[in-house]
Amino acid sequence: MSERGAFWRNIVYEEIVGIVGQKNVYCDEADLLCYSRDAWQLTVPWIKGGGELPKPDFIVHPENAEQISEIVKLANRFRIPLIPFGGGAGVCGGTIPVHGGIVVDLKKMDRIVKVDHKSLLVTVQPGILGEVLERELNKMGYTLPHYPASMYCSTVGGFVACRSAGSLSSKYGKIEDMVAGMEVVIPTGEIIRIKPVPRSSTGPDLKQLFIGSEGTLGIITEVTLKIKHLPEERRFKAFIFKNLHSGIESVIKIFRKGVKPCVIRLYDYIDAQFTLKGKAEIPEGGSYLILGFDGSREIVDLEEKIATGICLEEGGVEVSRELAEHWWRHRYDMYYPDAFRSSYSIIADTVDVAAPYDKLEELYWTIKRTVEERNPGVTMMAHFSHFYEDGGSIYMIFFTQQQDHERAVKVYNSVWKDALEACLKVGGTISHHHGVGLVRAGWMHKEHGKAFDILKAIKRALDPNNIMNPGKLGL
Amino acid sequence: MSERGAFWRNIVYEEIVGIVGQKNVYCDEADLLCYSRDAWQLTVPWIKGGGELPKPDFIVHPENAEQISEIVKLANRFRIPLIPFGGGAGVCGGTIPVHGGIVVDLKKMDRIVKVDHKSLLVTVQPGILGEVLERELNKMGYTLPHYPASMYCSTVGGFVACRSAGSLSSKYGKIEDMVAGMEVVIPTGEIIRIKPVPRSSTGPDLKQLFIGSEGTLGIITEVTLKIKHLPEERRFKAFIFKNLHSGIESVIKIFRKGVKPCVIRLYDYIDAQFTLKGKAEIPEGGSYLILGFDGSREIVDLEEKIATGICLEEGGVEVSRELAEHWWRHRYDMYYPDAFRSSYSIIADTVDVAAPYDKLEELYWTIKRTVEERNPGVTMMAHFSHFYEDGGSIYMIFFTQQQDHERAVKVYNSVWKDALEACLKVGGTISHHHGVGLVRAGWMHKEHGKAFDILKAIKRALDPNNIMNPGKLGL
Repeated sequence: MSERGAFWRNIVYEEIVGIVGQKNVYCDEADLLCYSRDAWQLTVPWIKGGGELPKPDFIVHPENAEQISEIVKLANRFRIPLIPFGGGAGVCGGTIPVHGGIVVDLKKMDRIVKVDHKSLLVTVQPGILGEVLERELNKMGYTLPHYPASMYCSTVGGFVACRSAGSLSSKYGKIEDMVAGMEVVIPTGEIIRIKPVPRSSTGPDLKQLFIGSEGTLGIITEVTLKIKHLPEERRFKAFIFKNLHSGIESVIKIFRKGVKPCVIRLYDYIDAQFTLKGKAEIPEGGSYLILGFDGSREIVDLEEKIATGICLEEGGVEVSRELAEHWWRHRYDMYYPDAFRSSYSIIADTVDVAAPYDKLEELYWTIKRTVEERNPGVTMMAHFSHFYEDGGSIYMIFFTQQQDHERAVKVYNSVWKDALEACLKVGGTISHHHGVGLVRAGWMHKEHGKAFDILKAIKRALDPNNIMNPGKLGL
Repeated sequence: MSERGAFWRNIVYEEIVGIVGQKNVYCDEADLLCYSRDAWQLTVPWIKGGGELPKPDFIVHPENAEQISEIVKLANRFRIPLIPFGGGAGVCGGTIPVHGGIVVDLKKMDRIVKVDHKSLLVTVQPGILGEVLERELNKMGYTLPHYPASMYCSTVGGFVACRSAGSLSSKYGKIEDMVAGMEVVIPTGEIIRIKPVPRSSTGPDLKQLFIGSEGTLGIITEVTLKIKHLPEERRFKAFIFKNLHSGIESVIKIFRKGVKPCVIRLYDYIDAQFTLKGKAEIPEGGSYLILGFDGSREIVDLEEKIATGICLEEGGVEVSRELAEHWWRHRYDMYYPDAFRSSYSIIADTVDVAAPYDKLEELYWTIKRTVEERNPGVTMMAHFSHFYEDGGSIYMIFFTQQQDHERAVKVYNSVWKDALEACLKVGGTISHHHGVGLVRAGWMHKEHGKAFDILKAIKRALDPNNIMNPGKLGL
């Protein structure tokens, strides 16, 4: 909207103030600048090289769904883009206001609305931080077993909008497996509610339409999540394997025995060295596996016993569980700003992909070899950090230092292109949990083929004025 | 189309023959009559009272997705309704051709396309019968742990289209939890594929749009399902409780301990008497619980031990496991025609509902009391046969004998109205796994509130000519 200038902006400003009150509207340059980025690595060399990012026109802090409904109606009247905003913790550019407009920051809607002790369900507003919710639940003896690395600065709304995953996903699933109900302000401004029921056979599951919609189909204003009692016990184990294959085989066999570790992390040779820092020896080409078990003590005992037996049978060498516990204690470190390795000319990022087991190793090798061959000076390392009965994800990390930021950005884009193309060639999915945002927006038609037309048709039907986070998800 | 008469019918017939060949098109009166009904109980007194059901104009048996695509395009040109048809085993009228048109019977598309032994995924065509697929999988040492009572005459396409559930749902989930990928001919005739990946964060989960769409959004032409190795062990237990409450409390506590029985069936007093037939004594107002455990022997041992401890603590009295095994062996009996209790003036049916635990007992009592109070001569009994960590389903069975079929139909409709209204008042969902079809079509707006507008908008966007199973799902 920026180019439409002060005249329009003044009219819209008055309307917004009429809805949320002056104290909840921001448009100072400093504020707008803050909301011009998220945690996308590409923005670092861009900014450090003197580049600017698109700024929004306004930031609003609504206090309830009714205010959001009014803002959505306003946006339709003026054809202003709306960008729902949680913690700004996304790593794909999903909240960058590429077309200007109004950032709808949900952090004032951060209440725990209801705890259903009988069904173990918690209903929260979208702006609550993951860590704050977890602490409150812990006080009551509960946990939402969803620990993404970003959880100190990411919100439940963000989790749901982006299909996020946490370190316990192998047992408890991703956020899409935890949502029982939700309230959404759809692009017409209507407020819809999807009631929490354990299962239903009354048509399509509309929750799964809004989960992962990244703000393009509505603004999530309430979420009901499945919670658990804090586990009686949580215990870790660590193993070194002579190669990646044996590590993956062990994981598959553990699942086939009906054991569900809460943590399964398998590091490739480079990432294992990086993680172990010499605290355990690893043979060249080897891999490093962390397993976690939680729940009732007797079940943990049995699961640990069965899983250990399988790992040893596959040639794994057990190392101190303290190594795994160290990872658990430091599991959030890598996310936070001082751990970011990107700067003016250095850039690092992760490409999180997933595939069924029949393609998983091929996916790893194809991406690694393609990227390293085509981009001299780039190294890829990986850990496989989310496993399921039918397949797993790979967290492929790349790193490069270039002469200057322009070169860094160029290599960055090239690596992404090579990695995603390789992923699709093998039959994997181009994101397991980071989402699409801008970094994968141009890849949605390749990921989904003709099925992407379905999503585009739904977008047109629900948001005819295209006000909801335009340009994201390829929509 | 019937009223448009022979002239039109002839034109369309030639076109259909051009697509699928003469041998795959049926329009004899006897054939049309066969496809005028499914297993909806209401049709029994209706037919026995001399009533007729709406017949289709043609039945086609396509042999591949390309033929279906052509039929869909043809249907768009002539605005002819299409009714996808699997086994005709549905109990909600979902395949009754209320507006005439072409029944697309998928039973010629019944192949197992691929078995992925590494990822434990099987890809099948939609027309394969559940029982046939299971036997083929068993030969390879696998199982699709999905055993609906109808499985000898229902198809995978039907399972998916209606969000069906089987007796092992408490551990393995409903069919929507087992679908990894699918191919669908959408209402434009385009063939879309959703590739099987364990999880993805690339926008909404479009699978969950077609699962449960009951033929209103497309025709499913291929499904990839998660399978398991046949369990090393499957073992049952049975308990009698002094009331329903203690039975439900036991189930909740079993889940809270992290134990996941593959079978959990809790019968209320009347249903328990009906099921036990005097083989075990049950106190007035008591309940009867069947538990099943499967998997690795050690895990089964431990789960059985923990669950038994909980049941005894809750005042349960253990009875012979042979009683539970008897149910397991006879679990399909109740579905099949000679077990149908409806006739000219007798009508029985089930209303399958679900709710979180905080509402589950209230749901049971409210429906039972409301229906019995308002409909003298009607008895409701129930079993709770699908439990999850956050809630469960209730299979509420009613039975009535009236003077004649007109009276039977009237009471039938009245019971349904009272039951569903009571369900919604409590906050339950009006179907756990039977689906919507016609019997609940008029209730979709009450079930979903304004969210139903979303579904209607999607329907209009994807199927502008409303050719796909019109009148079902309230669409």
